[in-house]
Amino acid sequence: MRAEPRSRAQRRADTLARLQTEFDCWVASADGMGNAHLVPLSYWWDGAALVLATPRSSPTATNLLRAGVARIGVGPTRDVVLVDGRVTEGVDDATADAHTEHTGFDARAEPDDYVYLRVEPTEIRAWREANELSGRLLMRDGAWLPIEE
Amino acid sequence: MRAEPRSRAQRRADTLARLQTEFDCWVASADGMGNAHLVPLSYWWDGAALVLATPRSSPTATNLLRAGVARIGVGPTRDVVLVDGRVTEGVDDATADAHTEHTGFDARAEPDDYVYLRVEPTEIRAWREANELSGRLLMRDGAWLPIEE
Repeated sequence: MRAEPRSRAQRRADTLARLQTEFDCWVASADGMGNAHLVPLSYWWDGAALVLATPRSSPTATNLLRAGVARIGVGPTRDVVLVDGRVTEGVDDATADAHTEHTGFDARAEPDDYVYLRVEPTEIRAWREANELSGRLLMRDGAWLPIEE
Repeated sequence: MRAEPRSRAQRRADTLARLQTEFDCWVASADGMGNAHLVPLSYWWDGAALVLATPRSSPTATNLLRAGVARIGVGPTRDVVLVDGRVTEGVDDATADAHTEHTGFDARAEPDDYVYLRVEPTEIRAWREANELSGRLLMRDGAWLPIEE
């Protein structure tokens, strides 16, 4: 039997829990010519943004710094959190430490030049099956939609 | 203990098995302005390509038909198959039937106008953890690399 669609309140709670507990995400980006790129990356949720670390010379870093925005998928394909967010470069040491603790990876110890990127959500969508496509938008313009639908 | 990196032969076998058995994938695309898009979609592997069905008016269909290429992720983030492929539009009835049987979704029965897209791999990469990043390229220019590394 298919589960009933979750309420917006439940989706928001599930979404925050997932952002806090997941270790990896799918990061889509594009260059100025319209060539799409996609990679899985570890991240840490700092309470307001996804923190990524990736080589400065990678297509993902180049594309995200060019565009200033990212589209990121978190979770399995049947329990999706999709984030559109604004990208900023650089984090403080405490944030980098927390990223290392969560992901097990310290980009500062790598021989290559890595860049930390914060992706602060402007829109968030979350759904499981087709019956949750309606009502999937949870955040717009950086603000959570009212829980009372 | 971290697992030993798989051989290229093992990665190829695992990759084909995953393409055949998985139900969903992450499809990255971009418009001509360099705006990236990302969605999870069901697919069926027809033996040579991923077959997708998505609304013709969706950003993914528009972007993929514009670009003629797709970048697709299959599997969990720690057991990744990354496909770059050429996109063509339309499939025969038998392929659409097989897509329906595999995904449980018949795009032809939808009220909206759907398009079937075939994504035929030109490059395939597969890896699990960081120790498999080396040797992750399995296919180039549509040809599997020799199994003997």
